[in-house]
Amino acid sequence: MSDSSRYRVYGDMLSGNCYKIKLLMQFLNIPHDWVHVDILAGETRTATFLAKNANGKIPVLEIEGTHYLCESNAILNFLAEGTAFMPSDPFARAQVLQWQFFEQYSHEPYIAVARYINKYLGLPENRKEEYFAKHKGGYRALDVIEQHLAKQLFLVGETTSIADISLYAYTHVAHEGGFSLEAYPNIQRWLKSIEQVPNYCSMA
Amino acid sequence: MSDSSRYRVYGDMLSGNCYKIKLLMQFLNIPHDWVHVDILAGETRTATFLAKNANGKIPVLEIEGTHYLCESNAILNFLAEGTAFMPSDPFARAQVLQWQFFEQYSHEPYIAVARYINKYLGLPENRKEEYFAKHKGGYRALDVIEQHLAKQLFLVGETTSIADISLYAYTHVAHEGGFSLEAYPNIQRWLKSIEQVPNYCSMA
Repeated sequence: MSDSSRYRVYGDMLSGNCYKIKLLMQFLNIPHDWVHVDILAGETRTATFLAKNANGKIPVLEIEGTHYLCESNAILNFLAEGTAFMPSDPFARAQVLQWQFFEQYSHEPYIAVARYINKYLGLPENRKEEYFAKHKGGYRALDVIEQHLAKQLFLVGETTSIADISLYAYTHVAHEGGFSLEAYPNIQRWLKSIEQVPNYCSMA
Repeated sequence: MSDSSRYRVYGDMLSGNCYKIKLLMQFLNIPHDWVHVDILAGETRTATFLAKNANGKIPVLEIEGTHYLCESNAILNFLAEGTAFMPSDPFARAQVLQWQFFEQYSHEPYIAVARYINKYLGLPENRKEEYFAKHKGGYRALDVIEQHLAKQLFLVGETTSIADISLYAYTHVAHEGGFSLEAYPNIQRWLKSIEQVPNYCSMA
């Protein structure tokens, strides 16, 4: 760990869940080391890695070489506390969490998994049924977001928050999972607004 | 809504996600009205309900008749803020979220869904393959919890927090999804400790 870095992130920039952390750290200018972990090569299943996250998933945030925090959205909440990316009003804070739990339960398991099957596995014949089933759930999640963004510019409040970062991660690469955003003008506008935040970095 | 109730909860006590809210509200003595919503009868897909939660899921917390909050774990965070069920230390708070996101991504989709297939659908022949696949993921989640609880009494810190409530909900009825907790002595001990919290109420 470099002297300047309190934080080390174990992740893979091709994973939307890891990219969320990179994006927030760029927005907030948080110094950190990035340690590439290759899931496909089994690097999340080694004893060394499992000692950091018994659940065997990335990203993992290492804090001062001693503490480990897992789950992308928990890490975002930890890093965003006290910044402009986290509202202070109690109800707005709960709404941020509402969108993040929506992301992990109703969005990511469809859109990220369809992307994985298509982009990384090359859409093999024996995953096609699952792939098309994922589209149904993914479009349902996009409908919920579109309907909400027809009423307001950001998911919560008047500015970009970590709720937007969480949903941006896999929505902006949904096409890699075979999704078309053509029927979602408000989502398209919202994606562009996040790409205009100072220090924005692309996914990989 | 009764005069005394700032809160109305739309839920079904047979759902672990709804039961989480009931349990915390009992622990904290929070007055509320409970409105039964029958998922199997399609009551989460009506226009009236979708106006409260466009994602069509329970539980939903109605606040003062005007605001709606969805996602069980977001509701728990909102209600627990400033109470003994939510730590104040920033890292501990993030750990609570870590366990709650773990619950929604790595635990509930296996254990709650296996329970649903078995208890509510009667384990039909055409869901058996899915059912047994769910067992693999569910036991993996239980392994992660057991390993953690071998080192400490509660998931986060020294007392019961909303992280424990989140994971308790479906773990304590895992047997209804065909899971055996026999090989999980620390989980068994932890479940009992939650049942000893004053005002504990059973699931249904």
